[in-house]
Amino acid sequence: MVNNYDTLWLDNDIKEVKYIDQTKLPNELVIKSTKNPDEMYQAIKRLEVRGAPAIGVFAALSMYVLSLQIHKNNLKDFVDEFLRNADYLESSRPTAVNLSWALNCMKDTLNQLVVKRYGVDISEEFATDISLDENLRYDIENALHNKAISIWEKDIAVCRQIGENGLEFIQEGDGILTHCNAGKLATIRYGTATAPIYLAHEKGIKIKVFCDETRPLLQGARLTAYELTEAGIDTTLQCDNMVASLMAAGKIQSVFVGCDRVAANGDVANKIGTNGVAIIAKHFNIPFYVCAPTSTIDINTKTGQDIVIEQRNSLEVTKMWYNNEMSHRDVNVYNPAFDVTKNDLITAIITEKGIITKDFAKGLVTLMGQA
Amino acid sequence: MVNNYDTLWLDNDIKEVKYIDQTKLPNELVIKSTKNPDEMYQAIKRLEVRGAPAIGVFAALSMYVLSLQIHKNNLKDFVDEFLRNADYLESSRPTAVNLSWALNCMKDTLNQLVVKRYGVDISEEFATDISLDENLRYDIENALHNKAISIWEKDIAVCRQIGENGLEFIQEGDGILTHCNAGKLATIRYGTATAPIYLAHEKGIKIKVFCDETRPLLQGARLTAYELTEAGIDTTLQCDNMVASLMAAGKIQSVFVGCDRVAANGDVANKIGTNGVAIIAKHFNIPFYVCAPTSTIDINTKTGQDIVIEQRNSLEVTKMWYNNEMSHRDVNVYNPAFDVTKNDLITAIITEKGIITKDFAKGLVTLMGQA
Repeated sequence: MVNNYDTLWLDNDIKEVKYIDQTKLPNELVIKSTKNPDEMYQAIKRLEVRGAPAIGVFAALSMYVLSLQIHKNNLKDFVDEFLRNADYLESSRPTAVNLSWALNCMKDTLNQLVVKRYGVDISEEFATDISLDENLRYDIENALHNKAISIWEKDIAVCRQIGENGLEFIQEGDGILTHCNAGKLATIRYGTATAPIYLAHEKGIKIKVFCDETRPLLQGARLTAYELTEAGIDTTLQCDNMVASLMAAGKIQSVFVGCDRVAANGDVANKIGTNGVAIIAKHFNIPFYVCAPTSTIDINTKTGQDIVIEQRNSLEVTKMWYNNEMSHRDVNVYNPAFDVTKNDLITAIITEKGIITKDFAKGLVTLMGQA
Repeated sequence: MVNNYDTLWLDNDIKEVKYIDQTKLPNELVIKSTKNPDEMYQAIKRLEVRGAPAIGVFAALSMYVLSLQIHKNNLKDFVDEFLRNADYLESSRPTAVNLSWALNCMKDTLNQLVVKRYGVDISEEFATDISLDENLRYDIENALHNKAISIWEKDIAVCRQIGENGLEFIQEGDGILTHCNAGKLATIRYGTATAPIYLAHEKGIKIKVFCDETRPLLQGARLTAYELTEAGIDTTLQCDNMVASLMAAGKIQSVFVGCDRVAANGDVANKIGTNGVAIIAKHFNIPFYVCAPTSTIDINTKTGQDIVIEQRNSLEVTKMWYNNEMSHRDVNVYNPAFDVTKNDLITAIITEKGIITKDFAKGLVTLMGQA
């Protein structure tokens, strides 16, 4: 069931994808609706839809909506256009793993049906004389619809379960600090780091949430502070360099962050600044929780040292502040996208399959064995 | 001797105060020249001149320049206008301690001369028939000139000595991190935290300096990164939340910061974010140095807990980023101007009178006894 606050959803009545245009936040809440492939492409490229899980779900729903508009009389032509749509959407953000993952899910769904009926693989050449009658069309549309919806629903279910699992670490009256946006706007409904927060709020547990603004792109200020405030949660925004001040003042009882990748030893890569927050939290004996869907656990990466951190465009640091330049034109810029937090700074890794609190290496293997 | 890179100075040929307009940095280097009281008032009020020591020196030079323009025939009228000038300049930034300190120095200088010659105190009523002949005028102008120049020279000498003292902590090839602007632009020539850096550069010791941008007002990005780059020093700018990443990567060998106040136990108050840097430095076993002129040591403040930290305007955090608002209009904002770093995180306090490295309480008392 769609609710009013979801980041994006399928409008089944008009067969369009609806989504919050995140480039308009926090100034305006604009809900866009589209069944047009160019608009879908631009929505991802322009970061109107952002956050790895949200991009994946958006692509899956888009593939279904676009498939309804392919008017062909034979299967081969239908498949060709379907695959062209997938390639086009994938080219909007080539490095987004969840985007290609979701597109592959949709392609596999179509392929499984075709393999089963005709014994041919859609990624290879096959006969062009299989006609696309109403029954086949209905079956294809139905399979694509169900897959897209299941991807959408699974995102919600995984996040909600992370929230349920993380709830045990939240007490009435807690001050909770979070960094960047691992919130519902990066997913569909609950977010990852914010899932325990939303669940606590749902259950009437009073908490205060403190959002790091998260330079250079300010996802904390623009998105996390926005979505939590909109949800009626007591929310405070601070600059990244104010974390120690908040903790020294006794305002923070726990830290919840999301993550981009968990290595086999429990080191986690997450948005730049996370490691500093973890070190400061440890200094003040404040528990530090990482909320991670199991899809982010990468057993093939041994430790955080094996994670390559790219440098982003220096203009993000020097030029966005004023209309004029923000620093000396000859200054070097250090602007890594992420950093690595070592496992000894992490109190627990909270996944939808369970919580790992110590001996992360063993715990992760066990968890992934179950998963 | 004035040099080309000073923040402000007396132009003795045209009897005007010259200064870098810091509101134009880092986009333009604009040197302004003034002998007009309204321009002097606005220069301080609009932060064209900022940094506590620089403001004080500017006021002292201004008082001398203005005194040359007082055309009166008797001493009483001269003193009245002189005191009006002082009151007017003081009202430009009423909370700036160095401003009122410098103005009092200039008033005392005039008063000492008047007391000595006529036995009257200029802050009290005195006879209006003391004529201001050329000799008296010459002596007054001479005394005011010498005092203003000595304040200017002392700022340079104190900073240079901090630099000399701090040099022993800098090695060839070091990466040095600094926070906010405790640089020459806050003083006349060397700054405090930057003094050892400039001295090292002068002596040909190769270093790399990393400047925290220092949200919310970006003094590190706008001013420190500017002045160091201009001086030809290898300078890198990073967001505040990138400190741990830099240290984990082995790029930082020491931290040098300035301070606003040193308590009797060695706790120091400095720009927000300093404490976090100190905690992270300790985590990575990186020495953390506080550069403090003895004028910032306050033996009457027992510990950092006794220092009241004001909250600044929340719009600094929420509104400056874009032309539009930067976060939700209902979000709370945590925006303290300073934080406190406990003495156990500090490797050494470097003053112009010497270095204190442990048992700060005892060291500070000894130092201030000498001072």
